[in-house]
Amino acid sequence: MDLHELIQTLKTDGGKIVMLVSDGIGGLPMTPGGPTELEAAKTPNLDALAKKGTLGMSIPILPGITPGSGPGHLGLFGYDPLKYPIGRGVLEASGIAFPVGPNDVCIRCNFCTIGPDGKITDRRAGRIPTEESAEVVKTLRAVKIPGVEVFVEPVKEHRFVVVFRGEGLGGNVADTDPQKVGFEPLDPVAKDDASKKTAEVAKEFFRQAKEILASQPKANCLTMRGFATKPTLPSYKELYGLNAAAIAVYPMYKGLASLVGMELVGQPKSLAEEIEVLKENWDKYDFFFVHFKYTDSRGEDGDFDAKVKMIEELDAVVPAIEALGPAALVVTGDHSTPAKMASHSFHPVPTMIVSDLARPDACAAFSETEANKGGLGHFQAIYLMPLAMAHAGRLEKYGA
Amino acid sequence: MDLHELIQTLKTDGGKIVMLVSDGIGGLPMTPGGPTELEAAKTPNLDALAKKGTLGMSIPILPGITPGSGPGHLGLFGYDPLKYPIGRGVLEASGIAFPVGPNDVCIRCNFCTIGPDGKITDRRAGRIPTEESAEVVKTLRAVKIPGVEVFVEPVKEHRFVVVFRGEGLGGNVADTDPQKVGFEPLDPVAKDDASKKTAEVAKEFFRQAKEILASQPKANCLTMRGFATKPTLPSYKELYGLNAAAIAVYPMYKGLASLVGMELVGQPKSLAEEIEVLKENWDKYDFFFVHFKYTDSRGEDGDFDAKVKMIEELDAVVPAIEALGPAALVVTGDHSTPAKMASHSFHPVPTMIVSDLARPDACAAFSETEANKGGLGHFQAIYLMPLAMAHAGRLEKYGA
Repeated sequence: MDLHELIQTLKTDGGKIVMLVSDGIGGLPMTPGGPTELEAAKTPNLDALAKKGTLGMSIPILPGITPGSGPGHLGLFGYDPLKYPIGRGVLEASGIAFPVGPNDVCIRCNFCTIGPDGKITDRRAGRIPTEESAEVVKTLRAVKIPGVEVFVEPVKEHRFVVVFRGEGLGGNVADTDPQKVGFEPLDPVAKDDASKKTAEVAKEFFRQAKEILASQPKANCLTMRGFATKPTLPSYKELYGLNAAAIAVYPMYKGLASLVGMELVGQPKSLAEEIEVLKENWDKYDFFFVHFKYTDSRGEDGDFDAKVKMIEELDAVVPAIEALGPAALVVTGDHSTPAKMASHSFHPVPTMIVSDLARPDACAAFSETEANKGGLGHFQAIYLMPLAMAHAGRLEKYGA
Repeated sequence: MDLHELIQTLKTDGGKIVMLVSDGIGGLPMTPGGPTELEAAKTPNLDALAKKGTLGMSIPILPGITPGSGPGHLGLFGYDPLKYPIGRGVLEASGIAFPVGPNDVCIRCNFCTIGPDGKITDRRAGRIPTEESAEVVKTLRAVKIPGVEVFVEPVKEHRFVVVFRGEGLGGNVADTDPQKVGFEPLDPVAKDDASKKTAEVAKEFFRQAKEILASQPKANCLTMRGFATKPTLPSYKELYGLNAAAIAVYPMYKGLASLVGMELVGQPKSLAEEIEVLKENWDKYDFFFVHFKYTDSRGEDGDFDAKVKMIEELDAVVPAIEALGPAALVVTGDHSTPAKMASHSFHPVPTMIVSDLARPDACAAFSETEANKGGLGHFQAIYLMPLAMAHAGRLEKYGA
């Protein structure tokens, strides 16, 4: 029996769970002997929770492996990121909250510029501004392919998403981007039999699109990358028996949450608004994924002090969440983003569960150093959901 | 996707890695309340590294399992010892640095003494001295078997290695040692179809060898054990993209390193010479496995104080390694060898990684007690290589 089969066997009704995900929260000292971002931040509310709850270190994928946002969140949601890879196309489509369906192939496309000889002169079409690009994207909606529904959606600058919807469309097609200028875009080549139809459809899309784009000054051609179908994930309802709500500002995280069947609630624009949405929907759901983006953003910027401020902003909303009285409150991140590295990193993520059933440990604050010695130990992120369920009284005994 | 596939997907160029393996370094107190060997030793240099780096406990195979040197090292090198068992014959051949090839079957042989009735009277031929034995071993090189190349190499006392090289030689043949006196050596019996030819070859080898040995006073017969072929391991270059060098005094560890494609550099006779070899080869490789044997040897002797001295000897070379500026310096052992037990043990192994990317923990010294609360947690040894790669900036992000 695997973990998912076990959980489905044991799941039962219980209390509400809040999973507060502070993206990229784990950090590093900027200088030897210094504090991490979390240690430098004044977090009286998180520290008070740490004294009550159980801490530990979440390993997003496996020791030493740095996750992207997709795998990082899948792990937190309890789905092995190595078993359920999310292709670039699907991630890009999720990123604009496109509702990816089971018969969809998603493709991340770039506008490019070609010369009179058909060869690429600029792989990003001069990074044309988003608004200009969006207009060109709309002209591509004129492409018609028999038996296949075609969606074309703008993303940012030269990037857009194409989705083919239809029967028998595999996702295993090679990129058409030659990766350097001076070459024509490649043909889309199927890498397995199930993807032959997709390759034909992509070829026809490219033919029609090129005609439509011919008169454009910069965006007169396109390349296609990351062909991907939606992974077949059991939903939160099927797997955990949870009516789950996702509260996020950024489309990417809404997209990821919708892949596992969470309902997207509200249209919050800030953390304060996210908490309002949480309150408004408190009675309607069993599980709330609340995503806070800016700890990651400031980490990616390499701005230690700004990340510290974001952590303090997060700390400030904790009492409002606590006041709702969740049976289990989980505070974690999908990965670490140390300002020192200005990127996602492989380091484990300080994590805590606060619940009447949490066994207190010796941790006196919410920090990397304290979490190292916490009662949850070092654990793979895929076990966080079972732990949260257990702390909310939602898992029955296995065996007699 | 399994761990090896993942690593191969993510590997990239980065800094140099030194893995300093102090064989059997983990220990136990001799009396309740006393220190372990590592805690009793004065290790100012290792302790200084511990303050900078991240500590943890490496579990060589699985909790509770005591490894031999072969599985212990395979685990450190990142190969699951349960997936890649190394047969005794191959381990013995590796132990004398015999270059085992893909068409080789290695057999660990013992001289024995038989009486006029052909029954064994001494299973070890009176433990004949190594030099005497080596001469007898050479006489066996007269054995000729059509279509098969035969190698016969001395080991120590009554032990020697036989290697058959040829096509279609499986390694699954039963031992011929009856395990007690008063019986004739058994026939080599194939345990699967692929090993039938090997059994025939072994029978013929035995027939000819017995004739050659007939006039020997003690070593007048032989038994064969641990028939084994080389496990098919992806090389360090294939798996990690690393040009790896092995620096070791003992043949066994050179043999193990060569099984995973490390190059054996230098002919060091002491730890000081090993460090010289490391310096001389610093520019030529990405990865250095440096093996220190004597912590294990003195542990096996049950000599606590002597093991403490060996740890102090190890400590003394640390600054010379640090001075080379590895991106990641790993200090670990393949298993514990507590003097109290005078043997390998199942206890996890204190381990540290020192790197600019190491997240500091509260560990103030390199010891079992400190490593228990370290930032690497308790982890299976097969994750040490991914962790070392990550700390040397050699693994890209998984997914977007």
